[in-house]
Amino acid sequence: MQPIVRIAENLGLSDEALELYGKFKAKIDFTKIPERTSPGKVVLVTAISPTSAGEGKSTVTVGLSDALKRMGQSVVVALREPSLGPVMGVKGGATGGGYSQVLPMEEINLHFNGDLHAITTANNALSAFIDNHLHQGNELNIDPRRITWKRVLDMNDRSLRNIIVGLGGPSHGITREDGFDITVASEIMAVLCLAKNLEDLKERLSRIVIGYTYENEPVNVRSLGVEGALTLLLKEAIKPNLVQTIEGTPSIIHGGPFANIAHGCNSIIATKTAMNLADIVITEAGFGADLGAEKFMHIKSRQANIIPSSVVIVATVRALKLQGGKHKNELKDEDVEALLEGTKNLMKHVETIRAFGVEPVVALNKFITDSEQEIHTLLNWCKENNISIALTDVWAKGGAGGEDLAKLVLSELDKPSNFSPLYELADSIEQKVRTIVQKVYGGKEVVFTENALKQIRQIEDYGWDSLPICMAKTQYSLSDQPKLIGRPTDFTITVREIIPKLGAGFLVCLTGDIMTMPGLPKKPAALNMDVDNDGQAIGLF
Amino acid sequence: MQPIVRIAENLGLSDEALELYGKFKAKIDFTKIPERTSPGKVVLVTAISPTSAGEGKSTVTVGLSDALKRMGQSVVVALREPSLGPVMGVKGGATGGGYSQVLPMEEINLHFNGDLHAITTANNALSAFIDNHLHQGNELNIDPRRITWKRVLDMNDRSLRNIIVGLGGPSHGITREDGFDITVASEIMAVLCLAKNLEDLKERLSRIVIGYTYENEPVNVRSLGVEGALTLLLKEAIKPNLVQTIEGTPSIIHGGPFANIAHGCNSIIATKTAMNLADIVITEAGFGADLGAEKFMHIKSRQANIIPSSVVIVATVRALKLQGGKHKNELKDEDVEALLEGTKNLMKHVETIRAFGVEPVVALNKFITDSEQEIHTLLNWCKENNISIALTDVWAKGGAGGEDLAKLVLSELDKPSNFSPLYELADSIEQKVRTIVQKVYGGKEVVFTENALKQIRQIEDYGWDSLPICMAKTQYSLSDQPKLIGRPTDFTITVREIIPKLGAGFLVCLTGDIMTMPGLPKKPAALNMDVDNDGQAIGLF
Repeated sequence: MQPIVRIAENLGLSDEALELYGKFKAKIDFTKIPERTSPGKVVLVTAISPTSAGEGKSTVTVGLSDALKRMGQSVVVALREPSLGPVMGVKGGATGGGYSQVLPMEEINLHFNGDLHAITTANNALSAFIDNHLHQGNELNIDPRRITWKRVLDMNDRSLRNIIVGLGGPSHGITREDGFDITVASEIMAVLCLAKNLEDLKERLSRIVIGYTYENEPVNVRSLGVEGALTLLLKEAIKPNLVQTIEGTPSIIHGGPFANIAHGCNSIIATKTAMNLADIVITEAGFGADLGAEKFMHIKSRQANIIPSSVVIVATVRALKLQGGKHKNELKDEDVEALLEGTKNLMKHVETIRAFGVEPVVALNKFITDSEQEIHTLLNWCKENNISIALTDVWAKGGAGGEDLAKLVLSELDKPSNFSPLYELADSIEQKVRTIVQKVYGGKEVVFTENALKQIRQIEDYGWDSLPICMAKTQYSLSDQPKLIGRPTDFTITVREIIPKLGAGFLVCLTGDIMTMPGLPKKPAALNMDVDNDGQAIGLF
Repeated sequence: MQPIVRIAENLGLSDEALELYGKFKAKIDFTKIPERTSPGKVVLVTAISPTSAGEGKSTVTVGLSDALKRMGQSVVVALREPSLGPVMGVKGGATGGGYSQVLPMEEINLHFNGDLHAITTANNALSAFIDNHLHQGNELNIDPRRITWKRVLDMNDRSLRNIIVGLGGPSHGITREDGFDITVASEIMAVLCLAKNLEDLKERLSRIVIGYTYENEPVNVRSLGVEGALTLLLKEAIKPNLVQTIEGTPSIIHGGPFANIAHGCNSIIATKTAMNLADIVITEAGFGADLGAEKFMHIKSRQANIIPSSVVIVATVRALKLQGGKHKNELKDEDVEALLEGTKNLMKHVETIRAFGVEPVVALNKFITDSEQEIHTLLNWCKENNISIALTDVWAKGGAGGEDLAKLVLSELDKPSNFSPLYELADSIEQKVRTIVQKVYGGKEVVFTENALKQIRQIEDYGWDSLPICMAKTQYSLSDQPKLIGRPTDFTITVREIIPKLGAGFLVCLTGDIMTMPGLPKKPAALNMDVDNDGQAIGLF
């Protein structure tokens, strides 16, 4: 690792804009960075419908940026920051893989400059202010049964999903049902990631709806008068973090909202900062193109005028075989037929990106279990179907394994952008959802439950219906049924509930049970974790 | 403020040992600091029985260190770090006051290098592992009704004191009663503050008892196998933090356990680090000498061989009048008679420190409401009673207002130390408590409830009875009755419950209702907090 001051120097970051956190991490005071007249171009990395293990999207994002740097380009990679809960639970680290990782992995995976802790604190301070308000006389007439604001912890903790608080008698608050989500599911995480600056952050925080009165009128943070305190708690967390890849490419890691009940991209501030520091910015969006990329285009791009000049769709032989009907326990076995069947899923994601006016590049991210035959089959299939594709071997080779992909991306960056969103904000809620279902998922129709329709009418009454849609849907299928693989066509999507997120500025449409607080497995990854007497982490990976 | 690298340079800290957190804060890698053959001498700052507003103990601690620095001494001040909960609730900042403060106040009062967040995370990870263990088959046969480990948040949140977790059906954990304490009440805070190094930290964490089986056998962290993961979560938090006073005196701020259910001092690592960096270390202990100082002597000194060479007892005219019977709303009014009556309380604390073999110095910490007459009365009374006393005016004048005190302290440091604890660890639990009650509180006897006696027998059965005692008692009286002011003599103390803290290594004796999760007032301090568009905090003080 190079000292982070060196990375910053190479980026042209002034001393004034750099706040060191140890020797290998820093925060960037983005207000001290001059705006470029021609900001860097943005490359968005997305994926086909993924397996539960993921397709190495972060790994490709890092490897592609390292490849571009090797080729002499001015490049910064912008990524989401990992949540501690899953790190302790299932999988260890989440900072890319192999030779395409960001460093220092331990710190990034553990407390990383305190951003998630600050969000947890602000979220739970708001909860404490709400319950204190109830306890101290409830001037705002908040209905304890209608409080929608939940507490959060950055932990996988199923026992906190459904709880009762305020037990123990009159000195100990008002008894009511409550629950904890994981921190990355907090609306404050989405708010932080969509805010343009501290002022905008405060404005967004003040708009957050925490529940409703007994008369069913919305109650927001402004009416509680605590938006200043919440902003104060987030004043450092709003600054993006600077680290580096194994190959020394500058990496800005900041924010990590869920890609189902939120929009799944790193912060706007991080992307904008990167665009003011380099010619090319490589960034990613969560899950497949039906979720992360769609939200990037309709929520993040629109709010911040960040237009992707190129889109990379990460595919793997494993995921294609899964989408072609292969059982998830047999993905290591060669199966060209399943692979070819699975290309239907890839084709849909390619068409989706094209529908936004961008010509995508496919990255076939190599796993050691892939057969030569499978790889060649996919490469040929793409050529036959006029789809740009490059094989990436960035896990094993770092940037050197991403140069073919980098060349394709560079040639796309030279072309003029034809980006346009698929729906207008002025469309009705039903119409916006219908557009996503038909044009992005390839489905036939949307069904709104009676409950959802009632909520839509109420949202219209409150005047919130011109917000963009944030679909909460399974990532495993283009439909809302996880097992409906490949490219289903004749399906309907059922919207069961609509949750307005006024601070983030979108309407979450729930299409199934979305888990907002994961649980730990029987043998959590934590059992293998330790630290040696020199303070070095053991068992994080 | 000077850049923290300059403060570090002046201290002789190597680059290797310094980890910057922004421009004005750092962490110290204490393993990289050579041990002095003659370590710095320790000055402990304690107080008489305090008012609810506090007597400015931290202010005097800071001012004394600044005074010593002005006089050319090599000095470091070691302090506890503030909890965010009270900052949001009642009083704003907690970093000293006036011209005797540590900087940067905003950062120290908000997230300060993440230590408390790391403790919160480790504490709640343990809770998640416990509930996951129950959910996944409960191999250890833990009785959910006998789990003593609680969750924590660094927040004043009364609604979380008594909760039910694990509702919602079989996928959502085992239903049981639980509750949240404030983070500073976590045993992990006490563990961090008493650990000598990372290895000792892990060993202590592994000993923590989280509850009991259905057969009433204790279950510790080691049996859950997560001490490595918890240590990993604390590997940065174990490093003490370096900041500075307004006058540029190096300040090491680290850890802040409660002074009732825990021992109320900054970390041993911080004090030891300071002792290896300067000739004189000024440090403090929570509440009055009956609580913080007693625990410093019997718990911290004993565990770490840190002997106070001098003890300062902070007194104020206000607190003396309160102890002399004046109503708390009339403390601004001159009342020499009440003041003189209140000296009985001061005298008891002086005698207590003398009983430990140390000759105390009294600091009369000046408030603007004090009358000349009151001040002179106390100065004379001390002279007549052969008690060293100096008037300090550090709030208004910084170090210049503490030079008289500094001279008295310096003369004490030249004298040989006669320190000895008042009880032996081998004494029975009853005898140890009796010694504290009689020799420190000046009471007549101890009464153990039937429940407490049962617990003592059980603690003896488990072989834990040779641990030191950590009394949880009101700070407002030498007795266990807050309203029994002055120097009561003929009182008994009732011990209701004994909580073994195997990780910290002490037995908490509860003598009344001790609040381990505060609540917010009707108008929390947070309502006045904000941040301007330059990122500067508003309303923290």
